[in-house]
Amino acid sequence: MPTNLEISRNTVRKPLVDVAAGMGIEPHLVEPYGNAAAKLSLDTVAELSDRPKARYVVVSSLTPTPLGEGKTTTTVGLGQGFAHLGKRAVIAIRQSSMGPTFGIKGGAAGGGYAQVVPMETVNLHLTGDLHAVTSAHNLLAAMLDNHLHKGNALDIDPYSITWRRVLDVNDRDLRQIVTGLGGRQDGIPRQTGFDITAASEVMAVLALCSSLPDLRRRLGRIVVGYDRAGAPVTAEQLRAAGAMCVQLREAVKPNLMQSVEQTPVLIHCGPFGNIAHGNSSVLADLIGIRCGDYLVTEAGFGADMGAERFFNIKCRASGLVPDAAVVVVTVRALKAHSGRYRVVAGKPLPEEMLRENPDDVYAGAANLRKQLANIRAHGVTPVVAVNAFADDADSEHQAILDIADEEGVRAAVSTHVAKGGKGAAELADAVAAACEEDGGFRYLYPDELPLADKIDVVARRMYGADGIELSPTARRQLDTYTRCGFGSLPVCIAKTHLSLSDDPSRKGAPTGWRLPVREVRASVGAGFVYPVCGEMRTMPGLSSHPAAERIDIDDAGQVVGLA
Amino acid sequence: MPTNLEISRNTVRKPLVDVAAGMGIEPHLVEPYGNAAAKLSLDTVAELSDRPKARYVVVSSLTPTPLGEGKTTTTVGLGQGFAHLGKRAVIAIRQSSMGPTFGIKGGAAGGGYAQVVPMETVNLHLTGDLHAVTSAHNLLAAMLDNHLHKGNALDIDPYSITWRRVLDVNDRDLRQIVTGLGGRQDGIPRQTGFDITAASEVMAVLALCSSLPDLRRRLGRIVVGYDRAGAPVTAEQLRAAGAMCVQLREAVKPNLMQSVEQTPVLIHCGPFGNIAHGNSSVLADLIGIRCGDYLVTEAGFGADMGAERFFNIKCRASGLVPDAAVVVVTVRALKAHSGRYRVVAGKPLPEEMLRENPDDVYAGAANLRKQLANIRAHGVTPVVAVNAFADDADSEHQAILDIADEEGVRAAVSTHVAKGGKGAAELADAVAAACEEDGGFRYLYPDELPLADKIDVVARRMYGADGIELSPTARRQLDTYTRCGFGSLPVCIAKTHLSLSDDPSRKGAPTGWRLPVREVRASVGAGFVYPVCGEMRTMPGLSSHPAAERIDIDDAGQVVGLA
Repeated sequence: MPTNLEISRNTVRKPLVDVAAGMGIEPHLVEPYGNAAAKLSLDTVAELSDRPKARYVVVSSLTPTPLGEGKTTTTVGLGQGFAHLGKRAVIAIRQSSMGPTFGIKGGAAGGGYAQVVPMETVNLHLTGDLHAVTSAHNLLAAMLDNHLHKGNALDIDPYSITWRRVLDVNDRDLRQIVTGLGGRQDGIPRQTGFDITAASEVMAVLALCSSLPDLRRRLGRIVVGYDRAGAPVTAEQLRAAGAMCVQLREAVKPNLMQSVEQTPVLIHCGPFGNIAHGNSSVLADLIGIRCGDYLVTEAGFGADMGAERFFNIKCRASGLVPDAAVVVVTVRALKAHSGRYRVVAGKPLPEEMLRENPDDVYAGAANLRKQLANIRAHGVTPVVAVNAFADDADSEHQAILDIADEEGVRAAVSTHVAKGGKGAAELADAVAAACEEDGGFRYLYPDELPLADKIDVVARRMYGADGIELSPTARRQLDTYTRCGFGSLPVCIAKTHLSLSDDPSRKGAPTGWRLPVREVRASVGAGFVYPVCGEMRTMPGLSSHPAAERIDIDDAGQVVGLA
Repeated sequence: MPTNLEISRNTVRKPLVDVAAGMGIEPHLVEPYGNAAAKLSLDTVAELSDRPKARYVVVSSLTPTPLGEGKTTTTVGLGQGFAHLGKRAVIAIRQSSMGPTFGIKGGAAGGGYAQVVPMETVNLHLTGDLHAVTSAHNLLAAMLDNHLHKGNALDIDPYSITWRRVLDVNDRDLRQIVTGLGGRQDGIPRQTGFDITAASEVMAVLALCSSLPDLRRRLGRIVVGYDRAGAPVTAEQLRAAGAMCVQLREAVKPNLMQSVEQTPVLIHCGPFGNIAHGNSSVLADLIGIRCGDYLVTEAGFGADMGAERFFNIKCRASGLVPDAAVVVVTVRALKAHSGRYRVVAGKPLPEEMLRENPDDVYAGAANLRKQLANIRAHGVTPVVAVNAFADDADSEHQAILDIADEEGVRAAVSTHVAKGGKGAAELADAVAAACEEDGGFRYLYPDELPLADKIDVVARRMYGADGIELSPTARRQLDTYTRCGFGSLPVCIAKTHLSLSDDPSRKGAPTGWRLPVREVRASVGAGFVYPVCGEMRTMPGLSSHPAAERIDIDDAGQVVGLA
């Protein structure tokens, strides 16, 4: 099979105005950015508002291995698959971060015949949205430190400041730093650090806003710290929110690209999947929902994480109602959930895992069953998508289909990576059928439930915990947030994505445990409170031989080394 | 008179493919980036190589006040002025930095009826080139620190590292920082800091490269520090240069916009004017030189700084030969050079300076005379452009014309800010006449002159110094660079732009002084050695009330507060 880069380079692309035309979007709404991507004017939302709504499908997965189980390829493949049923679909995915592209991954735009093209554009800057997030975030940081330097009129407690800086690079040396050294003219010394841009609250704000004025308001609500009387200090008070919004006025427009089969792809925003909600933008979905028969979107990590936030945070913000949820399953992940193997990121799979062994697959079923239940808890119909790998045995696929059958859930083996949309046609058929069932979509908890109870509900009903253990710090923080008026926000629980529990080594569906909440933070602008359960790394490092070492231009000026 | 933003917003723009067509550039070479800017494929250089060359005009100035004397408006105005003589001109200017836009300036795209439109696009991200420079620069920084963290196989002396990080924001707290705190997994503690992106050597590299392969080679030559044996360590050795080049593959393409009068504007790169050469890109000029009768480009600061580097660094890199040089003069700057007034950035002019006083204007003549001599020293014909302000008296303009006359130099009063190209038609006429004189262009020094002698030549012949004083450090550094094979590079002397001397308070044309060189640094990738004479600030700070506080979107979603 050719490499992703070869497939991408040999793809014939449609002009993006034609892609847009196929979505019913007129040329005056399409703003080209180079030859490979375009932005869609926000006027598109209003101009399409009288169109019928597409069926809304979210792609999630069982609890993944550190390698990932192919949610993006399945999302792209499924979107392409609908065309083989004579249906029009739009794909909506997250923008990948350049940090990991030059770090471990070497690229992220789907793969094989289920990828977004050209992959260089997806992986390198795209239209600059992440840079705009970086700029807006760091302008606020500069204005905050400048405020302290110029006399601190707002009486901000420097030790209460939670606003760090961001860069889209894997740079461990920036995690913990001291700024403001030098002398009187060089600011005030303070311990702080950099996160990767995807972890910026500005990214989450951009992903959750539903219009430019809504973006402006959310930016203004960002809390950077507290004054000495304990009141929150906002970006609005620092008079930074207007300038931040101006820096984001292009980034707020969704990007349009296409897949290898010329299916429209909206690629917009990429918030973290642990400390943030891990979903692509509300605005992309508000457009995509009016542009075809199906809108297929992706939610980060497993169904307990990305899909739960999709339902309770993203759909709350957009008002859109999902019709079905795909749960991506791989043979390797179920084998890993048997507890008999250990999978490590950046390393090849253990050899014994590659042998045909349907029993091991079946032994991992508990995780899949739980994730299907997590979908159903929201009144949404799940569909199992078996993401087929070349090494899989038919008996192993059958084991997965058997589990789905036992759960009364539609399932299909999908070969989209090798075969494109044709390989996902059976899956598309199953999803189409699931969309016709009305499960009665519901949030997991009402707005008015107290924050601690919201955390408890998610821990019990999604993760299978027996309850939560709040540290004294966490308890105090929840009190503060409630006092400050943030109690009606949804919660976004930052825990490992590698287990239903808070312990990444526990596979399957662990029971008999309680979720320990070390601390709780608030992304008030984005509109959620996030309890932190375990170590969350918000700035990756580089390996001994990062992907960047292999990435270069060749003599013809073409990019080489992207994976 | 309407504000810059109002003028910009009321301008009728031509489609950029039509602007390009007027330059003889075919549509397949034009890559739109949004509706207001486009990139030109680097294939343009080869495709136009058999076209006749335009006359090449550089716009410089006398030693400016901290307010600037309107070089960009004059550049744009002059470019527009040629149309009023029935000639086709192309304008080439630098991209402004977002740091100052949100700091003190509130914008930079020319002004009045001599500006690039729309000003929001010029001032906000443009096509993301500065962000690409930031990314490439910081990737190298991360790979360097990662190299130390992973065992330092190249045996780099950590104390020799000169490669800092960059961000396009005014943030004084980032000037001096300690990174790598935290613990074993968080890197190695080291004192370092951030510069503003315009000060990045990557920016200078991008501005001086003449092709994509040349960019790749220059990036590889960047020296980040020295090993313990004293040998330079390069980006190539760190295996970072390929990935950096890939990150810059769009940024290397010049951006096409237009002026209020639909004159083509190439806006590309914005290296610092003190620690770097302060000129827009070689690639923009290699394209622009084939696209009309005149190519008008701008060089930063006064003729002793920007124009000197234009001749000796930029023209050396491009091989292009200038035909004339405009020296922008204002009444206020000549009054300031009389030594009788003090002008402060961000404050209104002293009231007594606004009174009609041709004697004070004449009293500042020494500076203008010296800067005209600086142009002539390169065998280029100067033209004096009086940039007219509303408050100027005719007698004051006449004083400037008298000085020019005494020097035997063509001169014209230009009212481009108020009247656009029509107001610059007389200037264009003078420039056209100057272009027909062949002065016999020459560099100020040959490549093979020793570095210390090159510094001495510039100090004596451009600045009017009696010689240079090398500190022991500077002497040692020059020895190191010569030993490392950097001795044939040109020099870029980092000194204040507010005086011909190294002391910003000394106005006019100071004599009887020697230039003290504190230290010497090398931008080996960009291709120059830069002696540092005095305090060079490479990361600005914000004022008590930065421009960002006034910048916002209004109810219609339009940007307000840009100046």
